[in-house]
Amino acid sequence: MTESLSPERLACWRAYIESSQRLFTRLEEDLRADSELSFADYHVLVLLSEAPGQRLRMGELASRLVFSPSRLTYQISSMQKRGLVAKESCPADRRGSEAVLTAAGLLTLREAAPHHVRFVRTNLMDDLDDAEVACLTRVFERLGRRLRAARDASSTPADK
Amino acid sequence: MTESLSPERLACWRAYIESSQRLFTRLEEDLRADSELSFADYHVLVLLSEAPGQRLRMGELASRLVFSPSRLTYQISSMQKRGLVAKESCPADRRGSEAVLTAAGLLTLREAAPHHVRFVRTNLMDDLDDAEVACLTRVFERLGRRLRAARDASSTPADK
Repeated sequence: MTESLSPERLACWRAYIESSQRLFTRLEEDLRADSELSFADYHVLVLLSEAPGQRLRMGELASRLVFSPSRLTYQISSMQKRGLVAKESCPADRRGSEAVLTAAGLLTLREAAPHHVRFVRTNLMDDLDDAEVACLTRVFERLGRRLRAARDASSTPADK
Repeated sequence: MTESLSPERLACWRAYIESSQRLFTRLEEDLRADSELSFADYHVLVLLSEAPGQRLRMGELASRLVFSPSRLTYQISSMQKRGLVAKESCPADRRGSEAVLTAAGLLTLREAAPHHVRFVRTNLMDDLDDAEVACLTRVFERLGRRLRAARDASSTPADK
């Protein structure tokens, strides 16, 4: 089953995937209990709050969240119903649309953030020394670049 | 929003969470395309294949997968319908039940594993040097222990 990964690398992969899934499950439960937000809600609020004009095109948002277009439509319409975001047509391209952070969305994010940051510190970041922080940053930035490049390559028409 | 994490640690957390979510999404798509298994299906097959007698109590399986009892019931009944696992009452405790790997489940795992291991190597493990493997193993084993301890503490009655 595992013949092509060394025991050290298999142990590494398993520790990473099992602990990360456990962390993401707890993070989701913790956010919901504290602020009635899912992690996807929170992530959308953060991305919009940092974007110029607090707005992003739907396609850009889908790509940042790694969501399919239909999953993003569902996500944004759920957040629209709760008043956290609005949806507007793009000024530059009338066929496209953008998600826009509302004032209520910004206030919700500001209320949720301190608790969420405490969760992140208590559960992971305060446990790491500076060398581990540097190692994780390096490994996961490389991983992100590789996965984005693979996605871009697979969505480029073959004749280009 | 981020006053209590240093810029280095915030960059680390973001690289970790965004790249990991991107990786887990791709891993799920890749497994489904190659073998019609979800990652949860695959994980259940691996855990059962490694357990004594290829069987695990439902409670133990829920804990290993970080699934609620209802989510595990749904997961196992979906795998039962596809013939990958069977469900039996525990020999030791007639009220409890166990999931048991079927021969079809083992064959499915054996067919899926080489492709999945290649995915894991290509997308993450072959990119890491030995020092990075050691760092990730150390960090994520500590994280797993901490999260399990927190869960055990919160499920212990207060008067014990």
